[in-house]
Amino acid sequence: MDQFDLHPLLFGDLGKNFEAWYANRSYSTVFLICDVNTAVHCAPYFFEKTSLPKDLPKVVVPAGERHKNMETCQQIWSAMFEAGLDRKALIINLGGGVIGDMGGFCAATYKRGVDFLQLPTTLLAATDASVGGKLGIDFQQIKNAIGVFQHPAGVILDPYFFQTLPKEELHSGFAEVIKHAVIGAPELWHKIAPLKDLNHIDWDLILRLSVGVKATVVQQDPLEKGLRAVLNYGHTIGHALESYFLETDEPLTHGAAVAWGMVCETRILEQRHGQRALIISADELSAYLSRFFEKRTLSPTAFDAVWALMFQDKKNNSGQIKMGLPTMAPFGLEWILPEKSEVDCVLALPFG
Amino acid sequence: MDQFDLHPLLFGDLGKNFEAWYANRSYSTVFLICDVNTAVHCAPYFFEKTSLPKDLPKVVVPAGERHKNMETCQQIWSAMFEAGLDRKALIINLGGGVIGDMGGFCAATYKRGVDFLQLPTTLLAATDASVGGKLGIDFQQIKNAIGVFQHPAGVILDPYFFQTLPKEELHSGFAEVIKHAVIGAPELWHKIAPLKDLNHIDWDLILRLSVGVKATVVQQDPLEKGLRAVLNYGHTIGHALESYFLETDEPLTHGAAVAWGMVCETRILEQRHGQRALIISADELSAYLSRFFEKRTLSPTAFDAVWALMFQDKKNNSGQIKMGLPTMAPFGLEWILPEKSEVDCVLALPFG
Repeated sequence: MDQFDLHPLLFGDLGKNFEAWYANRSYSTVFLICDVNTAVHCAPYFFEKTSLPKDLPKVVVPAGERHKNMETCQQIWSAMFEAGLDRKALIINLGGGVIGDMGGFCAATYKRGVDFLQLPTTLLAATDASVGGKLGIDFQQIKNAIGVFQHPAGVILDPYFFQTLPKEELHSGFAEVIKHAVIGAPELWHKIAPLKDLNHIDWDLILRLSVGVKATVVQQDPLEKGLRAVLNYGHTIGHALESYFLETDEPLTHGAAVAWGMVCETRILEQRHGQRALIISADELSAYLSRFFEKRTLSPTAFDAVWALMFQDKKNNSGQIKMGLPTMAPFGLEWILPEKSEVDCVLALPFG
Repeated sequence: MDQFDLHPLLFGDLGKNFEAWYANRSYSTVFLICDVNTAVHCAPYFFEKTSLPKDLPKVVVPAGERHKNMETCQQIWSAMFEAGLDRKALIINLGGGVIGDMGGFCAATYKRGVDFLQLPTTLLAATDASVGGKLGIDFQQIKNAIGVFQHPAGVILDPYFFQTLPKEELHSGFAEVIKHAVIGAPELWHKIAPLKDLNHIDWDLILRLSVGVKATVVQQDPLEKGLRAVLNYGHTIGHALESYFLETDEPLTHGAAVAWGMVCETRILEQRHGQRALIISADELSAYLSRFFEKRTLSPTAFDAVWALMFQDKKNNSGQIKMGLPTMAPFGLEWILPEKSEVDCVLALPFG
């Protein structure tokens, strides 16, 4: 187990990929983790496409971020011990980011670690969570407070599952694709720039390019010592917006929050540079994002709350907000320590 | 962070060692974990010997193996978040094996991992738990059920702390020293063979030799693929004896159980080989151990229970008991799959 060797990343049909991957391995047992949604919408396809028996030992947990906690972990570990899994077992995580992060954490800590295979069923999990080795759960309302770095034994990215997603959730994941394009893949940007909607997409190609950016960054900086901070593009402001709107009647999706964050962070860069700073300008980005995300506004009072929330980020060590931002050249990193007066561009209408 | 590079292991005076180790590092905060015993008996020495302020953020948890669980972890994590620790914090684990394993696990999972320093206060923790990177907690009565492999940023082994131990506990840790001598250090065996008791011991030298054996094994096999199994010498039978007596009026210390286990496992080896199999014979070992451990007996009914408990070991994958045992030559490994009729040598008086 070399923590920094990238695991196999397999794109396309689950059946073909799984059988090829599984054939070279000898696991004592296979154990499936899914949530109440993927148990209904994704597990049938999984069993249809693989030769695994339908009565596989498994655990079905409640769906959603609010169940990504120690209580659900205890439910998962209990089921693993009940199934008598030894250290040569394989855990399969069938679900979105919550199942991948939490199921991966449970596998990485069960008897000090067993192999796990990620089968992301959302675009967000496929493009964002399938590489990087970040696993964990929330604790006392703090996101990803408890966790480990551990790579999966493999990831299979079958876009079939995206058909099961509501449009809003598909768009949410697409924000991360856009982020990867800006960070390190001009050719990906050229592919997605003409898109008016997300019907009839060649997901295999888009995913290869998008995940490729993340994989390159992670391989260069597995433990977030430097470059990996660029993956937070859009997230310093985005996370604060997401947290803020979570408490309102109209929560933002993660992607919509990140999209808004990317526009504002790009604007801050442009103001500092006095000119275009990335392969796409803040105005162009804003216009493009309006195809996928609704307009929202923020009151000045709400902005004060968002500004305060930005200080809760894991990356802020010393009472100073620090944003890792991309550069015009692919895979560059620029650190910005923004003032509140710069971040208030978040008050301008973000999209359109 | 290379998982397999051994961390600094510092022998002797805490003050000198800590200051030298700490001087080269820049942590944002230091956070102390201790239990109700070490808070009283060890923390004053720690503060006397180091320049750290006495009002260091800390958590004091209940003492003992039965508190090595998720509930106590949640208490520790809560205190860490309350103290506002970021990823550059240092956790200091001041205590025996329970504090080292559990505090290390909490550190290794807090915000996906912060550095921790082990200050073992028992001989058992010093000789056994201070290298190897095994961290974890019990879950649903299963020992070390949940955990990770992660090396500490350093270990300081100051035998001063052993003065705070009851004699029985010191002897318990000494069983692991004997184990290391048999596995890989004939020169250690020659040092300890003449000892009649554990007064006036040159612990620095004994610890260097003893921990050196463990470090060599762990470096050769960090993830228990092979050789590391030899560290279980005495433990396959010993753990079962320990579990069995835990439910009686006269629990065995870990060391007494392992001592008994080593005699029996050595006997099994001799029976298989038809001759002496290790640097010390089962009879010699038994006579030696009688200096440190009381005689105990086991009824045939109790033996049935012990035999059943042996099947619960994490290492037994397939309903067959598998013991990794040492060889005459240092750092050898021999696998034995014992029959019940061989293990019944446990019924013979082990010591004396």
